[in-house]
Amino acid sequence: MSAITDMLRTSPKDLSGIDQAALATCIDACFECTTICTSCADACLAEDMVADLTTCIRTNLDCADICAATGRVLTRYSGGDSDVVRAAVEACLAACTACAAECSQHAQMHEHCKICADACRRCEEACTALLATL
Amino acid sequence: MSAITDMLRTSPKDLSGIDQAALATCIDACFECTTICTSCADACLAEDMVADLTTCIRTNLDCADICAATGRVLTRYSGGDSDVVRAAVEACLAACTACAAECSQHAQMHEHCKICADACRRCEEACTALLATL
Amino acid sequence: MSAITDMLRTSPKDLSGIDQAALATCIDACFECTTICTSCADACLAEDMVADLTTCIRTNLDCADICAATGRVLTRYSGGDSDVVRAAVEACLAACTACAAECSQHAQMHEHCKICADACRRCEEACTALLATL
Amino acid sequence: MSAITDMLRTSPKDLSGIDQAALATCIDACFECTTICTSCADACLAEDMVADLTTCIRTNLDCADICAATGRVLTRYSGGDSDVVRAAVEACLAACTACAAECSQHAQMHEHCKICADACRRCEEACTALLATL
Repeated sequence: MSAITDMLRTSPKDLSGIDQAALATCIDACFECTTICTSCADACLAEDMVADLTTCIRTNLDCADICAATGRVLTRYSGGDSDVVRAAVEACLAACTACAAECSQHAQMHEHCKICADACRRCEEACTALLATL
Repeated sequence: MSAITDMLRTSPKDLSGIDQAALATCIDACFECTTICTSCADACLAEDMVADLTTCIRTNLDCADICAATGRVLTRYSGGDSDVVRAAVEACLAACTACAAECSQHAQMHEHCKICADACRRCEEACTALLATL
Repeated sequence: MSAITDMLRTSPKDLSGIDQAALATCIDACFECTTICTSCADACLAEDMVADLTTCIRTNLDCADICAATGRVLTRYSGGDSDVVRAAVEACLAACTACAAECSQHAQMHEHCKICADACRRCEEACTALLATL
Repeated sequence: MSAITDMLRTSPKDLSGIDQAALATCIDACFECTTICTSCADACLAEDMVADLTTCIRTNLDCADICAATGRVLTRYSGGDSDVVRAAVEACLAACTACAAECSQHAQMHEHCKICADACRRCEEACTALLATL
């Protein structure tokens, strides 16, 4: 059980109308993806062939920023009909899909891109699963 | 002419296919809205009636985080068909619309909420204008 | 072994002069503390006695922002004599110390504050341990 | 008069013991520096000689993240003896000093680095001025 599951459990917010497992999984996936994408951008910067990886670096940085914002927004989610939460998760899904596709192209050559593509796919799945419950 | 206009002009990126004025206006609006929303959340926290403003504080914090991420993503935009940019701007639009509506409810009582609602509306308009050009 | 350990291992950066275990532990602690502090601020906002928790909320938000920035800076660390890394980790240490102290005061009444104080103390220790190796 | 000056003026916080002009100037400088550094990192990524600019990109990204966190922390400042505010501003000062020095080295060749070095120096000065009042 992750720390965020504990935090949601001990919050006085009424989360009874929300799929809390899907929410906690998505929050964890967003913050993990932020960390990995920030790190992948930096590893790409350190490659000799950095000039061939600038699209990957931009995609990583975009994904890191959008996942960080989405993780924070989801942490504050208290249910109801929230256009903001839905739009944020959809942006996160788009960012993770794009970053997984871009990093996959370099995954055979750069193991950090493989790890990053995997993290993006986990976050993509968590966003898709959460959107289905909103 | 804002600093970001200068930065876009001096970047070697080919931005010829992009409405650079709409892009610069939206980037400026996103970062301004981040600052104002962060400040409005803090001013709400300082009000005696903070217990009545918790929805406003959450909406402010969400808007600040989404605007900050969107401002960064737009700063890295280099044109083309970007699902990520479109989804990020749509999330920003949703956040600004929600925050403008929430802050408007407290605008007569709290001047900081009035200033914040105005900043959110400017960002909303800038997002709408930019989306029309993508 | 955490994901960030894998990322540091697969980065082409020369990290031979750095205590990589201390670095990875501190990066993980920073990102965990960001998540928990963001969540604790939100749980405090949901308490009936929110008016008594505004200092705690501010301290949580400050700690979340500083830990997030420090986690990113550390992820990009490639050794050498970096005044920036040292100053960032010192700011993170100050933020975690302040937030652990503040949350501890509410730990008996609010379990989320107890969990948050614990996360802040882990990050405080990780910062102290890392500073000793720089 | 900037928007943040208006926000500080309309906040119910007691800021009588604080040099509000120095505070507002520093908040504005932090957020401006975040924007410019994010943009400079992206412009460097677009240069043909990106392989020679990776240190500049890392320094820009670090400065952007630290300035963003410091701007947020300062926005929440309500006076008193705050180790956290002091440490955050000192980290910001270190980041701006490092980024101004790094960007200055490329200022003759890349105008975006010149603009960025200028923004970093303005933020450096604002941090120094604010620290003198704390």
